[in-house]
Amino acid sequence: MLRTHTCGELTINDLNKEVTLTGWVQKSRDLGGMTFVDMRDRYGITQLTFNSDDNAELRAQARDLGREFVIKVTGKVIERSNKNLKMPTGEVEIKVSTMELLNSAKLPPFLIEDETDGGEDLRAKYRYLDLRRNPVRNNLVLRHKMAQEVRKYLDGLDFIEVETPVLIKSTPEGARDFVVPSRMNPGEFYALPQSPQTFKQLLMVSGFDRYFQIVKCFRDEDLRADRQPEFTQIDCEMAFIEQEDILNVFEGLIRTLFKNVKDVDLIDVPRMQYSDAMRLYGSDKPDTRFEMQFVELNDIVKGKDFPVFDNAELVIGINAKNCAEYTRKQLDELTDFIKRPQIGATGLIYLRHNSDGSLKSSVDKFYNEGELNKWSQMFDSKPGDLMLIMAGVKDKVRKQLSELRLEMGNRLGLRDKNVFAPLWVLDFPLLEWDEDTQRYHAMHHPFTSPKPEDIAMLDTNPGEVRANAYDMVINGTEIGGGSIRIHDRALQSLMFKHLGFSVDEAQKQFGFLLDAFEYGAPPHGGIAFGFDRLVSIFAGLDSIRDVIAFPKNNSGRDVMIDSPSTIAEEQLKELKISTTV
Amino acid sequence: MLRTHTCGELTINDLNKEVTLTGWVQKSRDLGGMTFVDMRDRYGITQLTFNSDDNAELRAQARDLGREFVIKVTGKVIERSNKNLKMPTGEVEIKVSTMELLNSAKLPPFLIEDETDGGEDLRAKYRYLDLRRNPVRNNLVLRHKMAQEVRKYLDGLDFIEVETPVLIKSTPEGARDFVVPSRMNPGEFYALPQSPQTFKQLLMVSGFDRYFQIVKCFRDEDLRADRQPEFTQIDCEMAFIEQEDILNVFEGLIRTLFKNVKDVDLIDVPRMQYSDAMRLYGSDKPDTRFEMQFVELNDIVKGKDFPVFDNAELVIGINAKNCAEYTRKQLDELTDFIKRPQIGATGLIYLRHNSDGSLKSSVDKFYNEGELNKWSQMFDSKPGDLMLIMAGVKDKVRKQLSELRLEMGNRLGLRDKNVFAPLWVLDFPLLEWDEDTQRYHAMHHPFTSPKPEDIAMLDTNPGEVRANAYDMVINGTEIGGGSIRIHDRALQSLMFKHLGFSVDEAQKQFGFLLDAFEYGAPPHGGIAFGFDRLVSIFAGLDSIRDVIAFPKNNSGRDVMIDSPSTIAEEQLKELKISTTV
Repeated sequence: MLRTHTCGELTINDLNKEVTLTGWVQKSRDLGGMTFVDMRDRYGITQLTFNSDDNAELRAQARDLGREFVIKVTGKVIERSNKNLKMPTGEVEIKVSTMELLNSAKLPPFLIEDETDGGEDLRAKYRYLDLRRNPVRNNLVLRHKMAQEVRKYLDGLDFIEVETPVLIKSTPEGARDFVVPSRMNPGEFYALPQSPQTFKQLLMVSGFDRYFQIVKCFRDEDLRADRQPEFTQIDCEMAFIEQEDILNVFEGLIRTLFKNVKDVDLIDVPRMQYSDAMRLYGSDKPDTRFEMQFVELNDIVKGKDFPVFDNAELVIGINAKNCAEYTRKQLDELTDFIKRPQIGATGLIYLRHNSDGSLKSSVDKFYNEGELNKWSQMFDSKPGDLMLIMAGVKDKVRKQLSELRLEMGNRLGLRDKNVFAPLWVLDFPLLEWDEDTQRYHAMHHPFTSPKPEDIAMLDTNPGEVRANAYDMVINGTEIGGGSIRIHDRALQSLMFKHLGFSVDEAQKQFGFLLDAFEYGAPPHGGIAFGFDRLVSIFAGLDSIRDVIAFPKNNSGRDVMIDSPSTIAEEQLKELKISTTV
Repeated sequence: MLRTHTCGELTINDLNKEVTLTGWVQKSRDLGGMTFVDMRDRYGITQLTFNSDDNAELRAQARDLGREFVIKVTGKVIERSNKNLKMPTGEVEIKVSTMELLNSAKLPPFLIEDETDGGEDLRAKYRYLDLRRNPVRNNLVLRHKMAQEVRKYLDGLDFIEVETPVLIKSTPEGARDFVVPSRMNPGEFYALPQSPQTFKQLLMVSGFDRYFQIVKCFRDEDLRADRQPEFTQIDCEMAFIEQEDILNVFEGLIRTLFKNVKDVDLIDVPRMQYSDAMRLYGSDKPDTRFEMQFVELNDIVKGKDFPVFDNAELVIGINAKNCAEYTRKQLDELTDFIKRPQIGATGLIYLRHNSDGSLKSSVDKFYNEGELNKWSQMFDSKPGDLMLIMAGVKDKVRKQLSELRLEMGNRLGLRDKNVFAPLWVLDFPLLEWDEDTQRYHAMHHPFTSPKPEDIAMLDTNPGEVRANAYDMVINGTEIGGGSIRIHDRALQSLMFKHLGFSVDEAQKQFGFLLDAFEYGAPPHGGIAFGFDRLVSIFAGLDSIRDVIAFPKNNSGRDVMIDSPSTIAEEQLKELKISTTV
């Protein structure tokens, strides 16, 4: 190595050592006849000193160093007169005797500091400079640590990491597949996997028993807020197990990660039925860092000639503790919040439980004090509380109130990024109705097994059939999901039928899997975690983009390398395709 | 878990335990009133017994079990009367009390045994069944172990695994790029990486210092003998280092793998100049499990009126120890071998050092005993040795003799798969002349640095310029290669110029990297190992296909899932492309 030590390791214990360091000039300042340079590398910052009295020429060279110049210095570790005890290296400095300029640097387009002045676009274009900043680098170091811990945990439980192919087959369900023309097979295409689902199931048929893979997956879809066309999954599958085994093994994974990476002991990983999650939180991924559960009011509010409630399928509310003092303006803000197009509610009704014990609602016209007292009892409200109530069609109003609940959680500071509330959500519906195509789709995927006792409803009441499917949620974010799979050809064929596949289509697309089920397929199931998302939660970040080394923007572009781009005519010709733009 | 134990763990120490096992019926046989079933899972085989006297019905069910049926049994561990000490579980059997059929199986299309009767095509189609066979499964378990060891070693040295993007940019050099049309950016394409080269260099510019990644790479090329369109690299890069540091760190990696995975202590990892490798072995990846180095004879054979030698640029030979007794037929076989079109030599000359000490050559007409004695001295031959000599144009004849040397190594049993001879080959040429395009190409890649003392020759004698480039070779196979990179914009631009890029082309394709070099790029270098190849060497296999879970065939097809395949017109339309087949 060009260096004897890194910029993060020298302390008072190294006094008088002759050392060689390499790194970048973070900043420098002159003071009398001296120049002080903060030199940075991945491991930390060390102060260098250059003194005109000792070596005027060297000191002059030091004065010429610009930000981000790359240098190699040799010198002696000495005690600092002006110690900085906030830094590990803050008690020492290097009295430099020789210096070599390894590379110069133009002035960076933004500050390479924890708080930078660079906008998002500029930082994306110069991602290699943004990655020099501590917060960004730390995210990737965290990601590395988490990946290592995942592998250690699963390897310790006899899981085998198997690489599944990236060049696979497009499916008719795969409207969001990226495809890859094959030069050797003109007119034909590979697809990039949205997940290694069928391959991991085949590995179970092969007897691999416990598989995992930290693997890139791909989805060519409109990139809403926080999606990336390529993303990383911790993909897992087990054979000869029941749902309980999966929940235990992967609860253990999450516990281990929190313990070993963040030194957080997860007290409890509660379990909740999907139906309860929807009823109590209006969401299949409730943020359980705070309570504020929904209270259903249909039974006590209907029949009092208030049309908004009388005409509603569902009247529900939440109790915002200690918010009774909310001003008119604050209440208007909340009403505006739920009326925003992406939420789309029409109105908000409130009930104040005043500090003097009196109750005051926005619908006093229709409800007397006795009735409001019943409301208060339902909410278990105390003086000082504010009840926020909405009404409408069941599915919609639950979603709307869920948004309001999260907003109130934010306003009340109940969503602390350093608090972690994991949760299993169980027993998802097998199918969900799609208005666009007017048919049922698999809520998880077509390989998910229905609960045996619900199979009979497939013909009569498909929407009510529950699946052996489960999600892991942390702080209101789904970080993983999975299911016990079908391992029986007849049941799998039945599922395909209900999903609108003809027998021929099913055979053409998934014949290899259906066939495999006939050669001795064991019971099996699995789970996949969104690794980007998991890392971002551990990092306390809202966006996955910050935990990806070279992310793409909302248009799927990498602005640093300027990709995607046009390709040469010659290349298109060889691939036997043409563009029709 | 459905089971209490695996099929590989019960021994004489578990006698009388009540256990539950799951697995596949490997085979069964009847003996008197009993049925014996070998049940298999990933961990081993355990014998089950069913006795008519105990439970006639259960025994009848056992008789009905076919090969590969999936079962769950409960019973007691008892001592076997007929022990099989070759198996870990061979001293016990399970006296089954209850059995559940988890899944039946059709008769597999080939035997699921170590030695199978299935041909390659059939096994490829039913890869999920082929993966049940021990040798195939063991390869993937080995692969998993090796990946874990690689990560452990590099993590221990502060390397960080960073995921680089899979959807990148096509380059004009990238004739072998797989491309991916972008739905969001019609008419534009991503490319799949042939390696993460530029990204890992940017990570060095970012200060990541020590990077690695076990990563899929892609190359759309004609699939010779043992290539796959997607393959896996151990990709590594370090900053603030010199070549010596890379050689030490990665020699350490290989040593650690051999020690921890195969319990082999590598004695020595010798280093050889590229020029010496070519001179002594006619190959840049010599198999050094055996000596048999080339001997150059120009000085002593020319000028004796033997036109084959007189007209040759180079006359070289090898000493095949103890082969003097080779018959005429055996010598003819060797001559036929080197005359095969893929080798293309025209003839072979021999010199026998007979056991009585006399010398006999196939060109006695031109050379007298005194002259042959000189040959013998050059070869350091002993009675019993056979010298094989070829003549021709330097580069060609070296390649030809290299093939013959390997063939002799095979014939003499000198290429034992359980012996491992690693080797660093150093100082590769920077450029190689390409007859097709009539210009120089980068031998390694365009980012490789020339030796400083050779830079001046770039203009005058480009073919002689040496690079800071190195390969690791094991047993005649290149398993890794790398270089110290250019980290200076001017030198990188000069390289692009010599590779035939215009300034505009270079900026358009690699502007981000050239720009990055101006913002403080540290000296850096790296290496990439072919992970598939490395695993296959550890497994003692000739083909990488056997260490890949779901490989593609020579036409780039996955015959199991039938991919690539045509895609729907609708999909093409959305992607704004059409096929021109």
